[in-house]
Amino acid sequence: MAKSHFHLHNHPDNCHLRWSREIPPVLTVPSGSEITLELPDGGGNQITRENTAAGTAVSSFDVSRADPGVGPIYIEDAEPGDVLRVDFLAIEPIADYGWTAVFPGFGLLCDDEEFVLGAGAPKIFDLGRPGQEDWVADRGYVVFRAGDGKEGKEGKEGKEEIRIPYRPFLGLVGVAPAEGEHSMIPPLDTGGNIDTRSLGVGSSLYLPVKVPGALLSLGDGHAAQGDGEVCGTAIETCMRATVRVTIEKEKKRWVKSPWVLTAERDAAVSGGREFMCLGVDSDLREATRKAVRGVVGWLEAEKALDRVDAYMLVSIAGHLRMCEVVDMPNYAIGCAVPLDIFVPLPFES
Amino acid sequence: MAKSHFHLHNHPDNCHLRWSREIPPVLTVPSGSEITLELPDGGGNQITRENTAAGTAVSSFDVSRADPGVGPIYIEDAEPGDVLRVDFLAIEPIADYGWTAVFPGFGLLCDDEEFVLGAGAPKIFDLGRPGQEDWVADRGYVVFRAGDGKEGKEGKEGKEEIRIPYRPFLGLVGVAPAEGEHSMIPPLDTGGNIDTRSLGVGSSLYLPVKVPGALLSLGDGHAAQGDGEVCGTAIETCMRATVRVTIEKEKKRWVKSPWVLTAERDAAVSGGREFMCLGVDSDLREATRKAVRGVVGWLEAEKALDRVDAYMLVSIAGHLRMCEVVDMPNYAIGCAVPLDIFVPLPFES
Repeated sequence: MAKSHFHLHNHPDNCHLRWSREIPPVLTVPSGSEITLELPDGGGNQITRENTAAGTAVSSFDVSRADPGVGPIYIEDAEPGDVLRVDFLAIEPIADYGWTAVFPGFGLLCDDEEFVLGAGAPKIFDLGRPGQEDWVADRGYVVFRAGDGKEGKEGKEGKEEIRIPYRPFLGLVGVAPAEGEHSMIPPLDTGGNIDTRSLGVGSSLYLPVKVPGALLSLGDGHAAQGDGEVCGTAIETCMRATVRVTIEKEKKRWVKSPWVLTAERDAAVSGGREFMCLGVDSDLREATRKAVRGVVGWLEAEKALDRVDAYMLVSIAGHLRMCEVVDMPNYAIGCAVPLDIFVPLPFES
Repeated sequence: MAKSHFHLHNHPDNCHLRWSREIPPVLTVPSGSEITLELPDGGGNQITRENTAAGTAVSSFDVSRADPGVGPIYIEDAEPGDVLRVDFLAIEPIADYGWTAVFPGFGLLCDDEEFVLGAGAPKIFDLGRPGQEDWVADRGYVVFRAGDGKEGKEGKEGKEEIRIPYRPFLGLVGVAPAEGEHSMIPPLDTGGNIDTRSLGVGSSLYLPVKVPGALLSLGDGHAAQGDGEVCGTAIETCMRATVRVTIEKEKKRWVKSPWVLTAERDAAVSGGREFMCLGVDSDLREATRKAVRGVVGWLEAEKALDRVDAYMLVSIAGHLRMCEVVDMPNYAIGCAVPLDIFVPLPFES
């Protein structure tokens, strides 16, 4: 049970636009607390139905206001070397729409001729409101309307509707880095804009604490995202999220980057619960190596495997996912191991 | 129904160790045929229980004999510009063991100090025999024994057995490239050693035909593999596989790299059937771009989406997997879209 329940509202005073240990906390809570936060979207609420309809949403977008973090939250007794566990208890939109946009110079294909100048207006997705017939959390999917505004396309096999599975999570979850001032956009070893879709309700994120109080911030709600977020944006929307924060003192001093325990049942991501380690680096191959080394280390520590066995086990049963490939200059690669491969044996008589 | 059923046995005369259009076919079949092949393992059957026990398996390994292809198979009427569809109908081990090894200079972490010299003896996995109690296809998993030979480890929560889901597929499926002579180890745009675990029974692989007859070859059976095959090997074993080969004339001249339709139900890979395009390149980021461009092109052609819509759709519902990151110098990145997002609508009255 939570020791306490706190609320943090969406207000400019509760947001920051750089990662730094120097930013004063907006809330102080004991370990074990639950916190409900209202979060602006990853564009700092700059993209609206109105400026999208007017055709000015992308041209007027101020990138320096992107990926605001709500926080920082000071967690009592957190010290460098500890691990902060963030459990995601509830995540739900508080806007009735989400959006996806292609910005110039951003996204995996931004150097391709057709996307060099961006791609016009954002796409707006209706999310509805709680209690109404079209409420996305009841419906379970978001309708993707093609650019011509029609709900369905006359495909080769007749008319189809495209339904994107509703899968809310927060793209931005991180703690303050040990030193320096950093942009909010690239992910870091301390988390941040990791854009990792495995972090739905029921999952847990582990972050290495670098400064007293950890200084946790959250933001960048996504109603749905693919692994990679290739065009640079997901279905971006304002969210209300409830998390539980717990400082783990006794273990995991070797947590060097974000770790994820996915939810028990998460058919959108995998057949069962997974442990995943994120590797964050500006070199894709090195990010991949870091992710694999993280899982190898976890298997050594938690499953008592030797290093060669652990490496082989990842090769035959672990899976590399490109969680985020657009938040330059850093990539986030996930190496995931299904937990149901570890089968408890009955005691021998 | 298949027009005919052919057999190709495991014999050195049926194997080749380079990709080239100059290699004469060992079998000629009409489009629509089914073919059952007996395939040596990806190490050319050099790793045995005996030389593993003797400690000489890795030191005596001749890499020039790695990844043999059984074929080439000439498919009548196949012409450059056509697409070859390979349906996987059956895949089953014909050896009673599989192996995983860490070779010096090979694998994602081969430059890490502890793996520079490789990692000693291969790990041998018991697969059993059909009709026997321990037959892997009945049991559904492969037991991973830790390096000390024990079946279970005393983990923190008691003794556990590690059970790797049995998921047979062929790592090597390809057609002859248009020109040149190529190593069997790196994947190419024409397929080859793509090591893509989605290619289990019930899946289909589409390959761009570059030469008359297509010249299909197969090999490198895996009883299980993770996305990435990070240590450089999967659970390698000799397989008997049955495939159906079909030349598709009418469409898909823009298939530039391997495409995959995964099996209808494949809980090990995803919740439902997926379309996946592989991007193959020596640069990881470019391989990723190619995979995304392939799916964008498929969405334009098959789902009548415009290019911006297709790009956004991949960002919010498509998933980047690192299928193969070790077969230097080329990587194979998969971009997958779940097919159940396309929902047929009833006719309007």
